[in-house]
Parts: sequence; structure tokens; C-alpha cells
Amino acid sequence: MTKALIEYADASAEVRAVYDDIMATRRTDSINNFWKALAHDPVTLKRTWESIKQIMGPGALDPLTKEMIYVAVSVTNQCGYCIASHTVSARNKGMSDAMFHELMAVVGMANETNRLAAGYQVEIDEQFK
Amino acid sequence: MTKALIEYADASAEVRAVYDDIMATRRTDSINNFWKALAHDPVTLKRTWESIKQIMGPGALDPLTKEMIYVAVSVTNQCGYCIASHTVSARNKGMSDAMFHELMAVVGMANETNRLAAGYQVEIDEQFK
Amino acid sequence: MTKALIEYADASAEVRAVYDDIMATRRTDSINNFWKALAHDPVTLKRTWESIKQIMGPGALDPLTKEMIYVAVSVTNQCGYCIASHTVSARNKGMSDAMFHELMAVVGMANETNRLAAGYQVEIDEQFK
Amino acid sequence: MTKALIEYADASAEVRAVYDDIMATRRTDSINNFWKALAHDPVTLKRTWESIKQIMGPGALDPLTKEMIYVAVSVTNQCGYCIASHTVSARNKGMSDAMFHELMAVVGMANETNRLAAGYQVEIDEQFK
Amino acid sequence: MTKALIEYADASAEVRAVYDDIMATRRTDSINNFWKALAHDPVTLKRTWESIKQIMGPGALDPLTKEMIYVAVSVTNQCGYCIASHTVSARNKGMSDAMFHELMAVVGMANETNRLAAGYQVEIDEQFK
Amino acid sequence: MTKALIEYADASAEVRAVYDDIMATRRTDSINNFWKALAHDPVTLKRTWESIKQIMGPGALDPLTKEMIYVAVSVTNQCGYCIASHTVSARNKGMSDAMFHELMAVVGMANETNRLAAGYQVEIDEQFK
Repeated sequence: MTKALIEYADASAEVRAVYDDIMATRRTDSINNFWKALAHDPVTLKRTWESIKQIMGPGALDPLTKEMIYVAVSVTNQCGYCIASHTVSARNKGMSDAMFHELMAVVGMANETNRLAAGYQVEIDEQFK
Repeated sequence: MTKALIEYADASAEVRAVYDDIMATRRTDSINNFWKALAHDPVTLKRTWESIKQIMGPGALDPLTKEMIYVAVSVTNQCGYCIASHTVSARNKGMSDAMFHELMAVVGMANETNRLAAGYQVEIDEQFK
Repeated sequence: MTKALIEYADASAEVRAVYDDIMATRRTDSINNFWKALAHDPVTLKRTWESIKQIMGPGALDPLTKEMIYVAVSVTNQCGYCIASHTVSARNKGMSDAMFHELMAVVGMANETNRLAAGYQVEIDEQFK
Repeated sequence: MTKALIEYADASAEVRAVYDDIMATRRTDSINNFWKALAHDPVTLKRTWESIKQIMGPGALDPLTKEMIYVAVSVTNQCGYCIASHTVSARNKGMSDAMFHELMAVVGMANETNRLAAGYQVEIDEQFK
Repeated sequence: MTKALIEYADASAEVRAVYDDIMATRRTDSINNFWKALAHDPVTLKRTWESIKQIMGPGALDPLTKEMIYVAVSVTNQCGYCIASHTVSARNKGMSDAMFHELMAVVGMANETNRLAAGYQVEIDEQFK
Repeated sequence: MTKALIEYADASAEVRAVYDDIMATRRTDSINNFWKALAHDPVTLKRTWESIKQIMGPGALDPLTKEMIYVAVSVTNQCGYCIASHTVSARNKGMSDAMFHELMAVVGMANETNRLAAGYQVEIDEQFK
């Protein structure tokens, strides 16, 4: 039951208001499964969307950079859904093949050296404190 | 014993060659503890440094963006050493307070929605496949 | 081969004894795939079941609370099998939709603030030590 | 610099408003280091606090259960700060020694069986889909 | 309070019995902090020790290999305590510097390629199913 | 597009050179999907293969032990592709059923005690520092 998706036609006014804002903000006429699943809990749907809208918009970092950071985290966490959806989002915001390849290379390397630092029990340098 | 750091003065020629390249590439005269710890294994020291040098240089992504991706991964993995050192590196490459704040906001949010997607068992949208 | 499932009819007496105890304890007549896979290693099957039986029974925490904690961990770790099976178990023990929604909200938020605390390198307050 | 803590006396009106709400909601006269660190980014401070306030209050799950779920996630993620602070919070909300011990036992076991399920590549049972 | 360590002199008969078995099995006269902390919950102390004793003894894999696998997991999870204690245990069981270096190299590499496989969304080869 | 696999017949000379080396080194005439996906980025393909070749060959640790460590990390990280492929590799290098069972038991246990150590906030023993 929790996995059922709530389509626009079946949604409450409260949920529709969020769907409308998502579509208007993202200039699209479709809603991702993520939101349709969260719609079972309108409070979390609304809070999560409003947080995402606030965070992912343009600011000191541009939206593409933010989307690539999202991919980096999702890959590190092995979240299949999030990798698929945010990689497409990053593509849509202008991520080229070359940028994707470098993103993956950095994510892979960071995951490697995170473990080398831990395994060698490296103490933090004075100048980094 | 593995935690001892190998200083330049005590290093073998093989290790010194890597240290020299690190200092020349980064235009600095100091070596981080991470490398001084890895120096116990000159093969891994050399391979890791050469990989990092290849990956972190300018390309389709600029060095600051890469450094922030490194921070995003390190924070997700809770690697204390890596968070401290790469945050300083990102600062040195131009990360402002505002950029850091947005980076943290995205990393936090991505870690949250990664779990919502998993917990709600959301299936991947056709258009993301 | 490791992925084959050992059905009751094909199980050794040692494995059947564990299966019988699982079915009696849980008042069910079916065995989950998890146990049928573990049955390839009767020692681990027995140890794991006996640990689970000891841990998940009623105590200072009620079985539903324990099952929700199990879901929280499984979601954090992105374990697809465990999310599916323990969410159903929690449902069977009385988790309502509203409880599930709040559980997910807490898990998501905790994963977010875990990273904010790490990324901001917050030191532990004296009163928490 | 990012690690400096912003005390009430030095905070902007915007930050003080959040601090005041935290202290009023939690009926305390002190602010944890987590919030004092986040205060460098008043937007994230406010959003995070309001989300936490919405999520952690009484609902279908009681506040103590929610706090223990928070601990479960923090332990799974190895977040030292979060383990220390949320364990104290759970204690303050009534977690007894016996409850803490059972919480840890469940968290440990779930982390173990999450890996057994993954390593044995167990397929999801039909009835769990 | 949970962090207090229970010394042999202050331990109950139930806890002492486990301590005695640990010392006899490991041929040592000291008890690690891990066990002294777990001793607050004699049931978990006993279950955990008996599981560890069953698992870590000689079998199809030798004790040193098992100890290095323990280190690999602990490093991947960034568990500071576990890295420190199991690295020493592996040393005591015969892990040389060269073995440690190779262990770290493999752990680092596996963590890297785990993310490359996820980020590139590689589908499982038919022959691996 | 990133998920398309680059077959030998369609590969550039640069990629073919790596494929040839993989097949020669591993004495096989097939290439895994992992490499066919990475081939979109020949620089990363080459660097990753050369690192793997350097790391996974015989040394102070034998290739089977290294492969089992790879499995241990992949299981801990819940990387489905990596678990499937490295388990088969380990089998091909001689991992028996009994060895696999013990490997899983150690990985499960380590993941459990990693959390007990964190949750009980155990301080590192003097002799482990």
C-alpha cells in the first residue's frame, strides 16, 4: 500500500497544491514517482518540497553544481532511485558527458581516500583545525 | 606504528619524489598528514597521489567544484579527517561562507531524501531509466 | 548456488529444527527467503535466529517499537530486502500509516542532521559528555 | 571559522528568534552547539529547526520513540555528535537503562542482518512486495 | 553513565563469567573497553561474546584473515574504536606491515569501484546472476 | 546513455588496449559490464584498471583473500553489482561454500559490533592508541 503512487486526478487539494507548485517551479507537466509516493503523507510532502525548493534554487552555487552534489551523495549512499533521477536532472540542467565522468571520478576517489584516512588513523593536521 | 608520520627528512628517495611533486603541483611547502601516513606504503602513496592529481585538476569541472564534491562525499561518510582537510582546501580554492552553507544544505537534504526514496520503496520512473 | 533457497522439504534435521522454532515463535506457517538462504550455513542460521528471537521479543521496548527501529536502520543502510520485509513485519505488529509516515520523517531528518553536524564539525557539548 | 559557535549575545535578531523558539519549545535555557554552529546560516538554521519541531513533536509516535529512532540512525551512521546529543535527549524523555540496552541490541542486529541479506543476495519474498 | 566501564572487581558473577571466558579464550589477562561497556547489559555482553567466539575461531578461514575482514568492514564504516582495536588484534595475529598496506589498498579500491558501479548504473552481467 | 555498454567491436583503440590487457591478465575472453560502462571515460577506465591490476595481484596477501575483502566491503556498502561480481570472482579463485559462510558471518558481526561500539560511545583503550 505504501508503494502505491498518488496521481494528480486522485490527489487531495492539499497534495494538488504541492504538485502544482512543483510543476510550475520546474516548468514541467509531470510529477516524479518520489513525490507521488510521499503524497501519502501530505505534511512530509509539503515540508520536503519546500525545503528542496529553497535549497536547490540559484544562490551562491548554481543549480547544476547543486544537482551534481546531489548525485555525489546519492552514489555514495547507493540509493538507486536517487542516482537515476538526479543524474537525469543534472543532464537536464546541462551536465555534459565529460562533466559526468569527472563527477564520478571525484566521487570514487573521495570514497577511496576517506577509507585510507580512516584505516591509517591519520590525525588532523594543526592547520586544518 | 602505522600512525607515525614520515617527514621529508626521513623519507626515502621514492617517497621524496612524490612529496616534491605534491608540493610543486600545489605550490606549497608543506605535506599533509594524510600523505605522511600513506608514505609507509610508497606504492599506494604514489598511485593515490597520481590518481588525485589526474582527477582533481582542471577539466570539464573546475577545481573548486571538485573540491566541494569531495567535501560532500566526506561529510556523507562521516570521515572527520577528510571533512577537515577538504573543507580547508575548498576554502583555499575560493569557497565562500555562502557557498559552504549551500553545500551543506544540499548534502543534508540529499541524505534525507535518499532515505525517503528507500523507505517508501519508490520505483524508478520510466523516463529515468 | 548461494542464492538457492532451502525449502523445508529439502532441509536437514538441524535446519528444520530452526524453521520449526521460527514458525512456532511467529505463529506462522511460512519461512522467509532470508532464513531459506541462510540455511546453507546451519550454524549461522541457528545463531542468527536465536539472537533475533532473544532481541526482538517483548522487554523494556515493545515488539512494534523494535520493528520500527529495525526499519529505521534498514532504510539508513539502503537494504532493499530488509526494508521490504521489516516494513511488512511492522505493519503486522500494528504500525499504522500515520506511524509509518512519522517513522520515515524522523529517519530522513536524522540522516540530514547527522551530516550537518559532521559538515559543520560541531564539537560535543560539555553536558553531553 | 565555520566551527565558531554563535552565542545568543552575539546573534542577529533572526537567529535569536530561532533560539528563543528552541528554548521555549524545549523548556530549557540553553542552546546546543549544533544550533550555534548552524546559526552561521540563518536560513538553514530556521528551516532545520522548524522541520525538527514539526517532526519530533507528539503524533502517532510518542517523542521518546522518535528520539530512540534518531539514536538508531545516528549510531548506524557513526555520527559521534548526534549519538552523544540524542542519547542524552532520549534519557531526558524517559529512556531507561533497559530501554537503551534493547535499542542498542536491535540496532546492532539490524546492521548485521542487513549485510547477511545483501551478501546472500536474498530476493524479496512475493508477500513482501 | 552508559560510558562508565565495569571493571572485573565491580562486576557481577554473570559478567565475571564472560570476562573469564574472554581472558581464557584469548590468553590474556586484560579486558577491552568494548566488553567493559557492554557489561552494563549482561545479556548482550554474553550473546555478543559467544557469537564472536563462535565466528572468529579457526575454521575454513584462518583467524588472521577473519581479523583483516573485520578491519575492512570497520574502516568502511568509519568506526574509530573498531579500527583501532581490530588493527591491533590483526597485528597480534601476525599481520605484517606489507599485509596491512595491501589490506588498506584493497579496502580503498573497493570503496571506490562500489561507487563507480552505482554511479554508472551498471547492470549485473548474466554470468554473475 | 551512460548506461550503454561499449562492446569490443565498437571500442576505440585506447579502450581496446585496456580490454586486451584485462583479458590477458585474467585469462578470459570476456569483459564485465563494469568495464564496458566505464569505457565511456577512457581515462577513468585506464586508471581504474591499472590500479586494480596493481592492487589485486599476488603480494603479501593472496588473490583470494583480497577478493574476499572486496566482497566484505561491497556487502557492507550494499553495492548489488559489486556483491554479485566479486562473489563470483572469489568463487573462481577458490572460495568454498564454507569460506563464503564464514566470510558472511564475520562481515555481519563486524557491522553489528561497529554499532555497539559507537552506540555505547566506547573510548579507545590506551593499548590500542
